[in-house]
Amino acid sequence: MQQMSKKTKDVHHKSSVALVLIDVVSHFEFPDGDKILGNALPIAPRLARLKQRARAAHVPVIYVNDNFGQWRSDASKLLAYCLRPGCAGKAFVETIRPDQHDYSVLKPMHSAFYQTPLDLLLRHLGASSLILAGLTTNSCILCTAHEANMRDFNVTVVSDCCAARTTREHKEAIENIREMAGARIVTLASLRLNHKIGHGKSR
Amino acid sequence: MQQMSKKTKDVHHKSSVALVLIDVVSHFEFPDGDKILGNALPIAPRLARLKQRARAAHVPVIYVNDNFGQWRSDASKLLAYCLRPGCAGKAFVETIRPDQHDYSVLKPMHSAFYQTPLDLLLRHLGASSLILAGLTTNSCILCTAHEANMRDFNVTVVSDCCAARTTREHKEAIENIREMAGARIVTLASLRLNHKIGHGKSR
Amino acid sequence: MQQMSKKTKDVHHKSSVALVLIDVVSHFEFPDGDKILGNALPIAPRLARLKQRARAAHVPVIYVNDNFGQWRSDASKLLAYCLRPGCAGKAFVETIRPDQHDYSVLKPMHSAFYQTPLDLLLRHLGASSLILAGLTTNSCILCTAHEANMRDFNVTVVSDCCAARTTREHKEAIENIREMAGARIVTLASLRLNHKIGHGKSR
Amino acid sequence: MQQMSKKTKDVHHKSSVALVLIDVVSHFEFPDGDKILGNALPIAPRLARLKQRARAAHVPVIYVNDNFGQWRSDASKLLAYCLRPGCAGKAFVETIRPDQHDYSVLKPMHSAFYQTPLDLLLRHLGASSLILAGLTTNSCILCTAHEANMRDFNVTVVSDCCAARTTREHKEAIENIREMAGARIVTLASLRLNHKIGHGKSR
Repeated sequence: MQQMSKKTKDVHHKSSVALVLIDVVSHFEFPDGDKILGNALPIAPRLARLKQRARAAHVPVIYVNDNFGQWRSDASKLLAYCLRPGCAGKAFVETIRPDQHDYSVLKPMHSAFYQTPLDLLLRHLGASSLILAGLTTNSCILCTAHEANMRDFNVTVVSDCCAARTTREHKEAIENIREMAGARIVTLASLRLNHKIGHGKSR
Repeated sequence: MQQMSKKTKDVHHKSSVALVLIDVVSHFEFPDGDKILGNALPIAPRLARLKQRARAAHVPVIYVNDNFGQWRSDASKLLAYCLRPGCAGKAFVETIRPDQHDYSVLKPMHSAFYQTPLDLLLRHLGASSLILAGLTTNSCILCTAHEANMRDFNVTVVSDCCAARTTREHKEAIENIREMAGARIVTLASLRLNHKIGHGKSR
Repeated sequence: MQQMSKKTKDVHHKSSVALVLIDVVSHFEFPDGDKILGNALPIAPRLARLKQRARAAHVPVIYVNDNFGQWRSDASKLLAYCLRPGCAGKAFVETIRPDQHDYSVLKPMHSAFYQTPLDLLLRHLGASSLILAGLTTNSCILCTAHEANMRDFNVTVVSDCCAARTTREHKEAIENIREMAGARIVTLASLRLNHKIGHGKSR
Repeated sequence: MQQMSKKTKDVHHKSSVALVLIDVVSHFEFPDGDKILGNALPIAPRLARLKQRARAAHVPVIYVNDNFGQWRSDASKLLAYCLRPGCAGKAFVETIRPDQHDYSVLKPMHSAFYQTPLDLLLRHLGASSLILAGLTTNSCILCTAHEANMRDFNVTVVSDCCAARTTREHKEAIENIREMAGARIVTLASLRLNHKIGHGKSR
């Protein structure tokens, strides 16, 4: 019954750039979750600032979160679970929680593209350039950056808005993404958000 | 952060068969929606009975619904929208609404597999055989049956639990699915649900 | 080692339109192959003319053929096999055989997109509109048209350059493709090939 | 016309394990190709030995090679090009060239799974465990290992049968694959090839 969606779909403005936040809605209740949280909390204020800047520049924000194997759940329930009293991730998630303007995609595995509608959403938005940030640098960010490169997106990773289990793993992953996934690596301070982030790909 | 999901994921029993209900959570508020609804209402009691039989046989039930282009929404919101007072689809959806035991997948386009995690969910369930029913026979059921065949699932379509805009379109699509997608076509009365529906594929 | 390909890749001109010929390199040595061949031979001269017109209009031609389960083979070997003396499909294939200017994609299943690089090739060519022709209307053409529609291509099917096992199956499939896959249906005589075939999608 | 392939397809024995050799048929004529070749030549004898052991253990061997953007070419032409007199990669490719028993998949981008039929071929073979080796560790091997993990394959990487531009890049990639892609890392000497390499996944 898809033909109908063209009549009733969201009105969203076109944008050549999209901000993709990976696994920032998390309960951190998993092996090594405490180590990751320890490195995630310090970047939380920068993630919030990154989102504010995207909003101000009219760049759409897409939250891509792990479904944590909860196939009977959805994005609303995941958020509520992570914000419940006593949840390890509560303080982190409160800083960067999605609002009604944001888009949401649940991913079943590491890459934000694998068996998700992210590619289609980006196409609807008209986005050919992605800004990536979130957790963890050497797993989901790494996989997503490589797959975005294969799909011909311009990829920018905001390195000080990403974190991993250890600083070494974070740094080595950033280096791999820069060298092998053709991504531009920036800091939040050096990021330019002017809807002209593309540097030449024709997707 | 996917590695964590292996610790926290849903406990679901394995089943070699899954019932996939396509686009039965619908507001029918789109072009030709009234025609489809006119042919959908008569099959609603059979769809409800099909689901009851699946539940009784411990066959998992997966609702795959169009996201109707509502990228900021999720399955809970879609259901609430379709059940709101005055919604064209309210009476139909009430008959077949999902409950807490059911699985849910939102699809952005016609096929239940295109940019969705359905394949992965079926693999987690251990399902190699699919029973398809829902709307509409000549669009989403047709596309899903062909793609399931390409992915090597055994496909059974319950013809009197499917509907389309016209009877002719329904019948021609059923014939195409039988002849070209390698599917078994049954009626609700002739369907056997005994966890042994597979007929030979080794997926 | 992909990064290298950007240096050594084919030089191909950009084109907003591509002609996709489906399963025209075939040995027809399979169940019902004789029936399909019986309906394919009469369209062979039109297929050849279609290809000539595409060439003259600088529209790239992509042959997408079944690998027939021959995982150790490739497009060259398939062509040689179909052109060998005594092959049932020899006369048909000789009429429409690919040449050095054409692109080739082997598909393992019905849809030209399923586990093939067709989408990527089309993106490299800059093609947002597809002209489909070949065999068979109610299987591989049908699946490919629906999947092209989901991927947001403008789809044109040249109905008198397609064939199936029976005339009824051909006609019903053409009707389904027109109604449910959003395709434009034309005859070879009514096809306009002017690089401006797109009618509005923004892919 | 896919239905036919079930009649005419290759006879291949089932195997729960497959050896996947990545980008070993290469001309090395691209930026940094000389650096990669410098690290590839020393592993060539081990790659040849790995293939011999796979053959002796009846483990199917799949060559997955970059199409280098040559969309009009195929595996035979690529091999001939790499073996031509004067080709930088000739000595390397001669050591590990495919023969008539081997399977071949051309990939358009880094990952061996992206827009290729590899997943389907592995399913046909019945393989749930993959042994990966080839070039380069921090690009195509890394992407393929992560994607194989997402697709629920058991992954074993033979570290001393892989190479990269630098030793540091190789080692960091091996560590990432071990830690984040759930792969077993072995040397050729420690590899056990007994058709029972699987360690628990149920794919």
